[in-house]
Amino acid sequence: MTILSFLTRASGTFQGYPAYSKLLVLCTLSSGGLVAYSESQPDIGTPDVDPNQKEPKKKRVVVLGTGWAGTSLLKDLDASLYDVQVVSPRNYFAFTPLLPSVTVGTVEARSIVEPIRNMVKKGRGEVKYWEAECVKIDAANNNILCRSNFGNNLVGDREFLLEYDYLVIAVGAQVNTFNTPGVMENCHFLKEVEDAQKIRRSVIDCFEMAVLPGLSEEERRKNLHFVIVGGGPTGVEFAAELHDFFEEDLVKLYPMAKDLVKISVIQSGDHILNTFDERISTFAEEKFKRDGIEVQTGCRVLSVSDKDITMKMKSNGEICSIPHGLVLWSTGIGTRPVVKDFMEQIGQAHRRVLATNEWLRVKGCDNVYAIGDCATIDQRKIKEDISSIFKAADKDNSGTLTVKEFQDVIDDLLIRYPQMELYLKSMHLSDVKDLLKDPQGNDQKEVDIEGFKLALSHVDSQMKSLPATAQVAAQQGAYLSKCLNRRLQCEENPEGPLRFRDSGRHRFRPFRYKHFGQFAPLGGEQAGAELPGDWVSVGHSSQWLWYSVYASKQVSWRTRMLVVSDWTRRFIFGRDSSRI
Amino acid sequence: MTILSFLTRASGTFQGYPAYSKLLVLCTLSSGGLVAYSESQPDIGTPDVDPNQKEPKKKRVVVLGTGWAGTSLLKDLDASLYDVQVVSPRNYFAFTPLLPSVTVGTVEARSIVEPIRNMVKKGRGEVKYWEAECVKIDAANNNILCRSNFGNNLVGDREFLLEYDYLVIAVGAQVNTFNTPGVMENCHFLKEVEDAQKIRRSVIDCFEMAVLPGLSEEERRKNLHFVIVGGGPTGVEFAAELHDFFEEDLVKLYPMAKDLVKISVIQSGDHILNTFDERISTFAEEKFKRDGIEVQTGCRVLSVSDKDITMKMKSNGEICSIPHGLVLWSTGIGTRPVVKDFMEQIGQAHRRVLATNEWLRVKGCDNVYAIGDCATIDQRKIKEDISSIFKAADKDNSGTLTVKEFQDVIDDLLIRYPQMELYLKSMHLSDVKDLLKDPQGNDQKEVDIEGFKLALSHVDSQMKSLPATAQVAAQQGAYLSKCLNRRLQCEENPEGPLRFRDSGRHRFRPFRYKHFGQFAPLGGEQAGAELPGDWVSVGHSSQWLWYSVYASKQVSWRTRMLVVSDWTRRFIFGRDSSRI
Repeated sequence: MTILSFLTRASGTFQGYPAYSKLLVLCTLSSGGLVAYSESQPDIGTPDVDPNQKEPKKKRVVVLGTGWAGTSLLKDLDASLYDVQVVSPRNYFAFTPLLPSVTVGTVEARSIVEPIRNMVKKGRGEVKYWEAECVKIDAANNNILCRSNFGNNLVGDREFLLEYDYLVIAVGAQVNTFNTPGVMENCHFLKEVEDAQKIRRSVIDCFEMAVLPGLSEEERRKNLHFVIVGGGPTGVEFAAELHDFFEEDLVKLYPMAKDLVKISVIQSGDHILNTFDERISTFAEEKFKRDGIEVQTGCRVLSVSDKDITMKMKSNGEICSIPHGLVLWSTGIGTRPVVKDFMEQIGQAHRRVLATNEWLRVKGCDNVYAIGDCATIDQRKIKEDISSIFKAADKDNSGTLTVKEFQDVIDDLLIRYPQMELYLKSMHLSDVKDLLKDPQGNDQKEVDIEGFKLALSHVDSQMKSLPATAQVAAQQGAYLSKCLNRRLQCEENPEGPLRFRDSGRHRFRPFRYKHFGQFAPLGGEQAGAELPGDWVSVGHSSQWLWYSVYASKQVSWRTRMLVVSDWTRRFIFGRDSSRI
Repeated sequence: MTILSFLTRASGTFQGYPAYSKLLVLCTLSSGGLVAYSESQPDIGTPDVDPNQKEPKKKRVVVLGTGWAGTSLLKDLDASLYDVQVVSPRNYFAFTPLLPSVTVGTVEARSIVEPIRNMVKKGRGEVKYWEAECVKIDAANNNILCRSNFGNNLVGDREFLLEYDYLVIAVGAQVNTFNTPGVMENCHFLKEVEDAQKIRRSVIDCFEMAVLPGLSEEERRKNLHFVIVGGGPTGVEFAAELHDFFEEDLVKLYPMAKDLVKISVIQSGDHILNTFDERISTFAEEKFKRDGIEVQTGCRVLSVSDKDITMKMKSNGEICSIPHGLVLWSTGIGTRPVVKDFMEQIGQAHRRVLATNEWLRVKGCDNVYAIGDCATIDQRKIKEDISSIFKAADKDNSGTLTVKEFQDVIDDLLIRYPQMELYLKSMHLSDVKDLLKDPQGNDQKEVDIEGFKLALSHVDSQMKSLPATAQVAAQQGAYLSKCLNRRLQCEENPEGPLRFRDSGRHRFRPFRYKHFGQFAPLGGEQAGAELPGDWVSVGHSSQWLWYSVYASKQVSWRTRMLVVSDWTRRFIFGRDSSRI
């Protein structure tokens, strides 16, 4: 975090001085692994020892998934305290923010992956990894069914049961087609490394096919029309990377394709990058316009066939069909079948996404945690607890709350209900007792329950669900590892806020997300960067900042070296267009 | 060549001084592209201009294939003289000698490929490339039918005809299963980059499956038994690479597999590497024995099922069956269907391999050349021409040949019949007139036709067909480019040997293969090297020689940098075991 804020400031200083920006990269690179998603290293808890027992049986922790959430948990989890097993069909962690770069070879697929066995062997204690997919969670019996997908030539049982004391679901999400016909069959996706490799081959196929002898110009144009559905960061980055790939490399090898290539981004909303600051969104749209990348906003895709994509303009209801050579579908995420099935078991069938409490514990299933894209935190509304809070705060049972009594519980309130802090910020209230002012703005010495309800009535409007990003997943993994490491310690000395509806304190402080900003590389060495403290930066310096941060965030020195050498190679030799 | 001989000598000097060997690599690397397979750059011919025509129509040259032969031809061909078109299903050249290294990630797949469009755009004149496979050669009408294999979502005709004035067949060979049942379905091969990538994933699968919970030790052992059929350089190198991969990297990640892994090489002959010098073959067998790689010689594979491989011991006729986790089939090569079909058209149906004359021109088809693994040179026997030679040499028609008359034709004889030179060498005859000695060893002044026949009767015993190696293919491509570049020049001033059966001279000197030696890397930084002049070197220094030569032989600075950085990365971080 310190380095990021330094960079934020440095970015402004270096604006317009690209030569200094390079220095910046060097210094960030040398900082290496210091910048991590989690804020601090968790303290180490005492081992789970029963003094009456000579060989204490360790609790079994099973982790599903090796993405951002799962890996971040494993990195910090003290495996000497538990019997830890990891189940995932991917035996590696992939640095997904660089997937768009892999689609065109700016970075190689191998450079962004790290074997999970490599990562866990560095920690304390043994972590067992099984390359398999969890196909069924049996919440009643505390076990899961796993299945491996190896070739038939190998011998042995491909299915096995694992029992757990604690289960961590970190399986991520799957593609969401919104039931649009033809999407599954005719579109590319960009969630896995294999997807990126497939896109890379397909892009080259489009070019090789388009220049074959005997095609009409119309046919060539059709094959060279690349359509991206979804104007989020993934879609926009892919469009930018594809444009760079063509302009910087392919045009030299396929000069006849020069005026035939077209890239279109289809967005249902009014702007691309609509989760970003408006300045970045506008900058991106202008940059794309200059580059000849067509952005069609307000369009809803109705269906995708192998050769055409049919869509409806929201403004006038017009339906049109355009031919394509390749479609990337990058809109929204859906719940995986194994999670859906689990939700039905625990009474969450009516929900869209698996819900956890603020401690990342699945609602209705005490020994199961869910982190990352597969889950969402069901934040408690202050409104629901208002009577209990009042009761707890009103120590003298007078039926009214004095300022002093309110101040006594405010710290716990701020921790327990994060929306409280956001509300105070949004209302520019420096002192919490300002909350208790009467409608005319006069200080009050005491409030009754009705007055208290009124004072806090708008606090819940500040509740926000967290975005499905790597940053959130990684912070959740790190948080959960800290909780698991200090489970016994905190059982004895709870460090969480007051239990307003109950007695005593919560064992841990609830999970709190800290937003470190986000990047949108836009091609041509330009990027948009949104940084903490409402900083926004666009242009070349942001691209260098992007290089620096992404290099420093790599999970190992190996991938860091590979990613940086891939960038260097691209600068010197360009990208490889071999169809492998 | 100069660098190679320097290295040869240097290798001896550096034996036992590994630190100096590193210097050697550096200096070889800096020599860069100097060491090439062809000996010299071809002279540039005059363009194919008809003075009566303002815009001379260029002859159309169609090249099939982008392997060693095709690429080497294209590199030196003066494309300004011809209308050159290349057809190949692979839009890149692959440095195949490093394929075994790619199977385990010592070198990455991308590091050994170079896009063909990149390579041809550097030459003079335009070379058109089409990503398609030639499916039919119509020798009577001088055209070929090509078919592309792109996804159905792309539009346009996938088949097209190309007409040619000269056709160069350089399509290589395909795998030869010798009709062994189950090989096609259950074995891996190692001819293409994709094959190597597939093996890499499969090896990891074997390990991940073998360590799953619930397997018996026997099942684990079965899954970790890697069988290589064929003890040639490819099979041996793969065995060595696999052994290193396990010993250096995998054992740390899969410690439970330590005593379960087994690698077996099955060879039908009595020794592995039997095309190499016996010292290297013995060194390899001893090295493998020390490493625990089992070499089973004198074994013929009868069939391969998905789980077992059945073979027959040649010595006692015993038939046994062993379980396997992965089989690599690397024995011999076969003719591709398109070449088979072409051979039928031109009256070569009875042959096993497409035959060319010594000028690489296909027998029975004057405007078609064939180079590389898809063809063999059908060397003319001196015996067949002996009367014509005698007649041509006997200028005074005396019915006898004087030493002087013989000496007048000897240069042409040596050029036209390469076996002649080999014969003289093998008989340690320094002077050709020694050939004419009578059976008692006395000089003869003259010989009649019978004496002449007797003198040359054993020359043809030295005829050798060339091995199907990259080195031969590359030299043939370079030779043919020289011929095509100087076609008109040499039509006017033929520079080949006398036409003994006809009048005048051959236009060009026939193709002559120059053997630069061969390497067999054996794992653990040990290699066997066979170098020109009967030099043999084994051990560490040979491995450094191998690094140097292979780095310098890369086709571009990009791949050279990538290969060297892959080696460096492997030294520092080991190989990646992610299953992608």
